[in-house]
Amino acid sequence: MQKQAVQKNERVEEVFHLFVKHVQNFLKEAKLNHEEYTNFVNWADRLGRAGELPLYTDVFLESHVLKAMYTNKPGTQPSLLGPYFIEGSPLLKKEPGKPLVLTQRHDEAGEVLMFKGNVSSTDGMPLPNTRVEMWQNDHSGKYSAFDADAPRYNLRGHFYTDENGDFEVKTIVPVPYSIPADGPTGEFLKYMDQHPMRPAHLHLMFEAEGHETLITQVFFEGDEWLETDVADGVRTDLVTKLEDKSGHKEASLNFVMRPQ
Amino acid sequence: MQKQAVQKNERVEEVFHLFVKHVQNFLKEAKLNHEEYTNFVNWADRLGRAGELPLYTDVFLESHVLKAMYTNKPGTQPSLLGPYFIEGSPLLKKEPGKPLVLTQRHDEAGEVLMFKGNVSSTDGMPLPNTRVEMWQNDHSGKYSAFDADAPRYNLRGHFYTDENGDFEVKTIVPVPYSIPADGPTGEFLKYMDQHPMRPAHLHLMFEAEGHETLITQVFFEGDEWLETDVADGVRTDLVTKLEDKSGHKEASLNFVMRPQ
Repeated sequence: MQKQAVQKNERVEEVFHLFVKHVQNFLKEAKLNHEEYTNFVNWADRLGRAGELPLYTDVFLESHVLKAMYTNKPGTQPSLLGPYFIEGSPLLKKEPGKPLVLTQRHDEAGEVLMFKGNVSSTDGMPLPNTRVEMWQNDHSGKYSAFDADAPRYNLRGHFYTDENGDFEVKTIVPVPYSIPADGPTGEFLKYMDQHPMRPAHLHLMFEAEGHETLITQVFFEGDEWLETDVADGVRTDLVTKLEDKSGHKEASLNFVMRPQ
Repeated sequence: MQKQAVQKNERVEEVFHLFVKHVQNFLKEAKLNHEEYTNFVNWADRLGRAGELPLYTDVFLESHVLKAMYTNKPGTQPSLLGPYFIEGSPLLKKEPGKPLVLTQRHDEAGEVLMFKGNVSSTDGMPLPNTRVEMWQNDHSGKYSAFDADAPRYNLRGHFYTDENGDFEVKTIVPVPYSIPADGPTGEFLKYMDQHPMRPAHLHLMFEAEGHETLITQVFFEGDEWLETDVADGVRTDLVTKLEDKSGHKEASLNFVMRPQ
């Protein structure tokens, strides 16, 4: 662990005092007894020591953070960043007359997907030169960097929209997958009688000058886990059609970013 | 980790849904942005991996659990169990004409303390044969079992009240001490501009037939950390006098247990 010179932070104080106030309201209503408190702490300790805290919070808390920030605001709804984002993905190179190709193995398994989009501002103006970061799971449901079998940046990359705010990238169709369910997070899912599945999705992050960073996901109509996504990441305007073309699938979605 | 057959648990579901409701209220008010959320998750991950989750929750959450359960109820107020309780303390043997002696090294450093108490029910009737568990830190501020230098059950033990609900035990005066402040819990304290000190205290747990288990602590008048205890464990009715006798100190407190 890195040693830092930590300073008083008034925002931490403010947020902690608000948290305590609402926890007190929660405790008044839930009436936790001491044994329940102890059971909770023992479980949370196992969760923390197993390194599953980011997994648990991203699955069960992050959507509430996003909904509190963005519901009823204009523009594309965000969805969770999740625990599988990593920094440093490669820039995808544009070759004349060819589509961008998301970093992949030469024999990457799965159905080919041509994914197209447009990025504009809430006033309708296209946003050229927007940085688009994209990451997704492979045909076995795993994310590179969390899978010893795949190269670190497999199915990860970034690129920029063209002069009309458009982009098109060749990848494979992502698949539904189970979040890790063998540890304390899985124990919690069993108490809740909740399956561990997420619907298939692409992760996207958009950065454009003068606009709020947009972190979101794209889902596909007909996916059997759309309604019961364990991470509650699905929003109506993030679901698109997966169309059959000869030999591959095609999908598209337009994204609207909010000015800062 | 032990594998268990985990079953759906309706109480976990109920508590989690109440927690989410109050977290949503918290988020509406605190307006956490995504970067603040990410900073929180990174800190919580370090806390969990360092094994400090029980320390953090016992110091910053347990008192709120207890206050929600017990404020305005009759009987002695509970205080936190804390992270330093361990099971299996020895039974202190009663020798005729001598006081009970809390397990200690033959050359245990510190001032001798004779601690007396009486245990009764809320109706005023004494509670004979009540099991009393007692644990405390040593003169260097450390708890056995969390200190490689001390025998595992040093300054830990249990015994029973006599026919009048009385007990008397010879120990040493506990000392104020700093909770571990080098890790993520200490980082949080620095953000909050809060010192890491707890006032000197004895830990006591009482178990009597037909009564709620009482977990509490005893503090001493004049302690400089009484008002600002990092763990918010002090209650007015848990503070007693430390009286000077020739060659030792004496203190006493009466405890009132609630019928189940």
